[in-house]
Amino acid sequence: MARETTWVELPETRYPILFEANWLAGTSASCRDVLAEHVGKTALLVSNQTVVDLYGDRLMSELEGVKVDLHLIPEGEANKTLAELEKIIGTLIKQQHTRETTLIALGGGVVGDMTGFAAAIYQRGVPFLQVPTTLLAQVDSSVGGKTAVNHALGKNMIGAFHQPRAVLMDVAVLKSLPPREFAAGMAEIVKHALLADVSYLDWLIKKQDLILQMDDVVLSEMVRKSCEIKSAIVAEDEKEQGRRALLNLGHTFGHAIETLSGYGQCLHGEAVAIGTVMAADLSARHGWISEADVERIVQLLRTFNLPTELSESLDIAAFQAAMGRDKKARASGLRLVLLRALGRAEVVSDFDERLLSETLVRFLKV
Amino acid sequence: MARETTWVELPETRYPILFEANWLAGTSASCRDVLAEHVGKTALLVSNQTVVDLYGDRLMSELEGVKVDLHLIPEGEANKTLAELEKIIGTLIKQQHTRETTLIALGGGVVGDMTGFAAAIYQRGVPFLQVPTTLLAQVDSSVGGKTAVNHALGKNMIGAFHQPRAVLMDVAVLKSLPPREFAAGMAEIVKHALLADVSYLDWLIKKQDLILQMDDVVLSEMVRKSCEIKSAIVAEDEKEQGRRALLNLGHTFGHAIETLSGYGQCLHGEAVAIGTVMAADLSARHGWISEADVERIVQLLRTFNLPTELSESLDIAAFQAAMGRDKKARASGLRLVLLRALGRAEVVSDFDERLLSETLVRFLKV
Repeated sequence: MARETTWVELPETRYPILFEANWLAGTSASCRDVLAEHVGKTALLVSNQTVVDLYGDRLMSELEGVKVDLHLIPEGEANKTLAELEKIIGTLIKQQHTRETTLIALGGGVVGDMTGFAAAIYQRGVPFLQVPTTLLAQVDSSVGGKTAVNHALGKNMIGAFHQPRAVLMDVAVLKSLPPREFAAGMAEIVKHALLADVSYLDWLIKKQDLILQMDDVVLSEMVRKSCEIKSAIVAEDEKEQGRRALLNLGHTFGHAIETLSGYGQCLHGEAVAIGTVMAADLSARHGWISEADVERIVQLLRTFNLPTELSESLDIAAFQAAMGRDKKARASGLRLVLLRALGRAEVVSDFDERLLSETLVRFLKV
Repeated sequence: MARETTWVELPETRYPILFEANWLAGTSASCRDVLAEHVGKTALLVSNQTVVDLYGDRLMSELEGVKVDLHLIPEGEANKTLAELEKIIGTLIKQQHTRETTLIALGGGVVGDMTGFAAAIYQRGVPFLQVPTTLLAQVDSSVGGKTAVNHALGKNMIGAFHQPRAVLMDVAVLKSLPPREFAAGMAEIVKHALLADVSYLDWLIKKQDLILQMDDVVLSEMVRKSCEIKSAIVAEDEKEQGRRALLNLGHTFGHAIETLSGYGQCLHGEAVAIGTVMAADLSARHGWISEADVERIVQLLRTFNLPTELSESLDIAAFQAAMGRDKKARASGLRLVLLRALGRAEVVSDFDERLLSETLVRFLKV
């Protein structure tokens, strides 16, 4: 497959998402030209042990003539903290990186979010590149410039909008992902289809076997399609004043699940999968989509090995409090992203509180 | 005195600096209209115990109908850390502040820098106001949108450019400042004159007695003049790509002094005063200003009760290393802001290393 490029167009900048299969997982292709264009004399490669063991050497060999330092962060969402961020900054200072350095995030969402945020605040901002190695990072966190760490009291509460200079994708790396990580990425992909494009939903249902078989061509088409949906929404609303909130379909419920389960207990994508079903359920209770539609969503998520219900009960009052702390909450009251139809999401503030209670009772009492 | 306003004009935004003597220190004036314009239903007032005891009640009474929470931070530069920042974020989350809240910094540079940075990164950015209560904060840190905290390995290494919605000044509060704090602010004011306006330098020399007597009219004129110099430079170069670096006159030396003395041992303004003399000394060694000019600068700084030399020796090699970590350092080598003439500073990278060594020997060996 030849290299393909999707551009993210923003008011003040634009940057490419490059699709170059096997440049990182194999040696049949190269991104040396793109790296040379965006990296100066020095760079800090941020990754974790597992990923750097798989792809570190290859990436280093693509960065010819650059002084590259390496900073490893411990794996898992529980480490997405200010304390770990401070260590990245410490490495940058110790190795005397100036404002001209480039940070390179090689890894999944945790690596990407932390590297991006470190780049946003080191000396008040340095450039960075995303090299996402999980499906979730490829279709979601690496595109759009949202960077963050967690606070003990809330997920992604501390962060910045900081756009990467480029995103370099290799769908071939997905074959080495643990199945649970791959499934977590599929949750965001189903979400993209549900919120923006019913024909994409039909395509996912039709191609589900090839997706599960990791067919290179189908995976490439899928990742590109999801990146295009996300890019288009981000392009219209970089700072999440309006339309970008649609990408949070399933996330207000999902974040509450993550908060109450403790970070790291369930994967973000798994929480989003359950949250998406909850949003679909509430949409159906309003009569906007049918029970059959909800069942279709549940079946598709299950096909991709995702949970569609909780494995243990959660306290409703605590859950509601956790929802209120979500960034989608507004001074004016809770807003939820719901489905007006399959493929058409909307931010809704005048939902029926009674129906929300029914949804919470159904899903939280296992 | 009637209210006066200076506007900071930036490519994407503009905001007012209001001069309203006695609105905070007395009750003869009010900024209620401005506060009402910029603060919505909720606000977090960030301050320290000393300042809130003096002006907290007055500011609260000016914020009619707003749910105001209070967060106090411990005093001193040593607390300008990510750990203290995390506590501000914790209060915001606990009190359920949304993206619509406004942070209000009531205090000096530490409060302003930390509040501004908290506003920059809480939920990826919320608005904030500056109510600076020290001379240093009024003429320097509250204007221009630089926010930051320190890292154990370097000062202001972690931060963001985040502009306030408005800056509300009251020069009457300066009368309650400890003399050492007032002097520290004068260092930045002398710096403004040196780098941009020799007639302002002459004015400062002429008015030095009235300044020391805290004459309201003279103080107002001085703070406005310094804010105008700073605003004009920031307007041309918000993100410090070029001309804004001139504001760092005396700061590369000054930061190294602060780093080696340990944060909190000497005030920022005191370190800048010594650093300014060092920059002037090095400029004179290049023949750009005269020895008499350096002596004039030294005398003026002494008149304002500022140190012009170190009280104990510092290690030259450690000092050079600390200078190299300053943000003015570039991959291409050290750059210094030096004086081509009184009132005209320049960023210089081709200074004579031998002359720099002479300056270091003269000042670091006490």
